[in-house]
Amino acid sequence: MHTAGVDLGGTKVQGVVVDHDGKRVGEARGKTPVSGGPEAVVAEITTVVKAAAKDAKVAVGKLAGIGIGSPGRVDPDTGDLFGAANLPGFRDPVPLGSMVADAVGVKRVVVGNDVVVATLAEHRLGAGRGFDDLLTVFAGSGVGGALVLGGELRAGSHWAAGEIGHMVVVEGGELCPCGRRGCMEAYAGRVALERAARAAAAAGRPTELLAIQERQGRPRMSSGVWKAALDAGDPLAHELIDRAIEALGAAIASAVNLVDVQAVLIGGGMGDKLGEPFVRRVETAMIPHLFLPPSQVEVRLGELGDYAGAMGAALLLRR
Amino acid sequence: MHTAGVDLGGTKVQGVVVDHDGKRVGEARGKTPVSGGPEAVVAEITTVVKAAAKDAKVAVGKLAGIGIGSPGRVDPDTGDLFGAANLPGFRDPVPLGSMVADAVGVKRVVVGNDVVVATLAEHRLGAGRGFDDLLTVFAGSGVGGALVLGGELRAGSHWAAGEIGHMVVVEGGELCPCGRRGCMEAYAGRVALERAARAAAAAGRPTELLAIQERQGRPRMSSGVWKAALDAGDPLAHELIDRAIEALGAAIASAVNLVDVQAVLIGGGMGDKLGEPFVRRVETAMIPHLFLPPSQVEVRLGELGDYAGAMGAALLLRR
Repeated sequence: MHTAGVDLGGTKVQGVVVDHDGKRVGEARGKTPVSGGPEAVVAEITTVVKAAAKDAKVAVGKLAGIGIGSPGRVDPDTGDLFGAANLPGFRDPVPLGSMVADAVGVKRVVVGNDVVVATLAEHRLGAGRGFDDLLTVFAGSGVGGALVLGGELRAGSHWAAGEIGHMVVVEGGELCPCGRRGCMEAYAGRVALERAARAAAAAGRPTELLAIQERQGRPRMSSGVWKAALDAGDPLAHELIDRAIEALGAAIASAVNLVDVQAVLIGGGMGDKLGEPFVRRVETAMIPHLFLPPSQVEVRLGELGDYAGAMGAALLLRR
Repeated sequence: MHTAGVDLGGTKVQGVVVDHDGKRVGEARGKTPVSGGPEAVVAEITTVVKAAAKDAKVAVGKLAGIGIGSPGRVDPDTGDLFGAANLPGFRDPVPLGSMVADAVGVKRVVVGNDVVVATLAEHRLGAGRGFDDLLTVFAGSGVGGALVLGGELRAGSHWAAGEIGHMVVVEGGELCPCGRRGCMEAYAGRVALERAARAAAAAGRPTELLAIQERQGRPRMSSGVWKAALDAGDPLAHELIDRAIEALGAAIASAVNLVDVQAVLIGGGMGDKLGEPFVRRVETAMIPHLFLPPSQVEVRLGELGDYAGAMGAALLLRR
């Protein structure tokens, strides 16, 4: 029995097909449309699922179902996706699941939050295996997270748990892309980092960040741009990433002090690109704030990287 | 069937006797010894339990058991109390339960963390009734807290959950009594508040706080001293309590953003003394940081006040 998983991101659509052991046997990737509304997004998902099925040598009609990980949340009553403001035409609730079911011709389509499904994947198949109590932190354009407590995902009273990026680390601090002040994401999210870098450059701070971005032909300062600037020893990049690491350390330690978990997993574009050294620095930044002895909290890099979302989406069908 | 509950605090020992409906039918209070080690503490607990039983007109020998809420944590393997550094002679683990059982002549004695038992009491008998997901915050000399998730107390992977007082609200901020920097307790705990008030007074800031404390004959700046200073319009007291409220608001909102609960309960000496207006101000201070619509999170004053610890300790015997 094969199932498909789709990670619907702000920039790309990653698809996988997994077999009944959860092994990835096919994959494909597309670009998230920037216009055309939900119909264009559904068309791209359809293309990606078909390509991934072809890669897996499985007929689309034979798929047992499709799982989709998406920004936003799913209304448990209607099944509609809401709050996915980054996607074109998704300001109002969208019945994404039934639209994809009709378009692909597959009966069962389940939609879940992207961070939640990536957490599911890391917990069942990745670096989070074996931990009953786990905090995941995905640092990308924003910083999202999720909690596994007692072996179960913590959805929250209003399906809103996991907003570690919006824990306050500096009262009255930097303005966050969310509009609040002093959130961890205001220091550690890529949107905030790019804004800070551009402001510093505009104020005359010398930096290679903009040149590297242009050279790499990126519309935004991607994690790869930050990695290249750090590798080149760019002082502004180092200063801003140092600050991001301090904010991540403070917020993660605060979260651990509150809920007391066995392990913390760090993933997302920044985690994946900057890798193990970045994770070790976040771990070090946690120590001054941590109530437990640091040896009692395992801090790990996510194992599934770019595939965590799509693999976890496929797992949605097995819940 | 009657049971006794004892709240072993840093300054006082509060005892209650409850009937099988959890109703308080007797009470007594003593002072926590400042010397004499665990033996002196056990002797005082014995006196208080006997007096509370007498008040309830129940023979001590007829008590089904005694629950004790104490600072520190109980080792689930040995039953020893550890980490209760505020109590005289409790730096090393103490077999408090068996010592009290022998001294009082009651077979069953259960010891639990003071904040945990107060949370139990508020959840089962007080302002937390009916909430499956609940955060409690007890602001006293320090600031402790606990989480009820899915109707169950969250102990944590290392029995260390609930340290909301040591969530970071100002990276690199004020020194906390715990030795770390920028913790919420560094702004909102009474030990930190008194330290800040004394430092300001020593630096020449005019304030009535010290005079009120002396007039009330208190060895420390108790919650009652702060209340009197606020009522008298003391500007320094207002400034420091404003700061405490901001810190509480930021940390509580951060906690809610992470775990998503239905309700927040505020208790402890400061909550009890400053009452409903204080709780409403903390609620207002949460709003700028809260991810959920504020209407979805109920913020309440604890209902059991000073009795929460002793009532919850009695409940320990019913788990």
